[in-house]
Amino acid sequence: MVEPRIDAITLGVEDLERAVRFYRDGLGLATDGIIGTEFVGSADQPAGAAAMFTLADGLLLSLYPHSELGKDAHVGQQSVVGSGVSLGHAVASRAEVDALLAEAARAGATITAPPAERPWGIHSGYFRDPVGHLWEILHFLPAGSAEPSG
Amino acid sequence: MVEPRIDAITLGVEDLERAVRFYRDGLGLATDGIIGTEFVGSADQPAGAAAMFTLADGLLLSLYPHSELGKDAHVGQQSVVGSGVSLGHAVASRAEVDALLAEAARAGATITAPPAERPWGIHSGYFRDPVGHLWEILHFLPAGSAEPSG
Repeated sequence: MVEPRIDAITLGVEDLERAVRFYRDGLGLATDGIIGTEFVGSADQPAGAAAMFTLADGLLLSLYPHSELGKDAHVGQQSVVGSGVSLGHAVASRAEVDALLAEAARAGATITAPPAERPWGIHSGYFRDPVGHLWEILHFLPAGSAEPSG
Repeated sequence: MVEPRIDAITLGVEDLERAVRFYRDGLGLATDGIIGTEFVGSADQPAGAAAMFTLADGLLLSLYPHSELGKDAHVGQQSVVGSGVSLGHAVASRAEVDALLAEAARAGATITAPPAERPWGIHSGYFRDPVGHLWEILHFLPAGSAEPSG
């Protein structure tokens, strides 16, 4: 059986420098910037340039070009374009949902879904980062405070 | 500044039951199964049916239909199809990389990249789950044991 653990999340990005600007300069996440440029790659071998952010509990968030992720996983660049994943960030209040979405927008993200209450007990909104990945900023409502479902 | 934290990862899936079978029955991850079916949704409002897995450090892995994630994020179903993200799972040895990839394959995943050593110091391989998401099973090599770069 697999241990229930995810240690790293790699976001495929079209423009690595643009992605770093958003996450480092826009959102203020700490990083050593683009590393691994000494691994130049080839038509078959992925290059190493990537940016990494160590998050809470040691979770590693990496930004890595689509082209190289496609080679590394042997699936081709076209397979790793798109965002069939949403990353969730929980905050302690509705007001913090609003504030964090506003901060992301100032940093260059697009708010796709303004904050709203879901009937299953969360208040959340979504933004898309400048390179295409979805984030949901969410607040778990206290039990019993959500609207009853129909 | 944003706290460096990801609390949830939502995978958009085409076939929720198939995805649950892989993660619960195939990989053995604990879940209450499909929940939220009482929230039926509409053309504009997402339905609630989803499956959730609580991982180490409280990280929540959710499976949620593309159609509903597209509505929830106000981006449309076509925007959330695809896998521009790879989820990383670290293990303690090269042998465990091999074993876990084999287990995933037995459970219905497709191994896209067989285990190999990357020049930046990891030994890893990738699989794609039955609904399209990429996972990298990786072992961080002891410092100095990786091949020197050219």
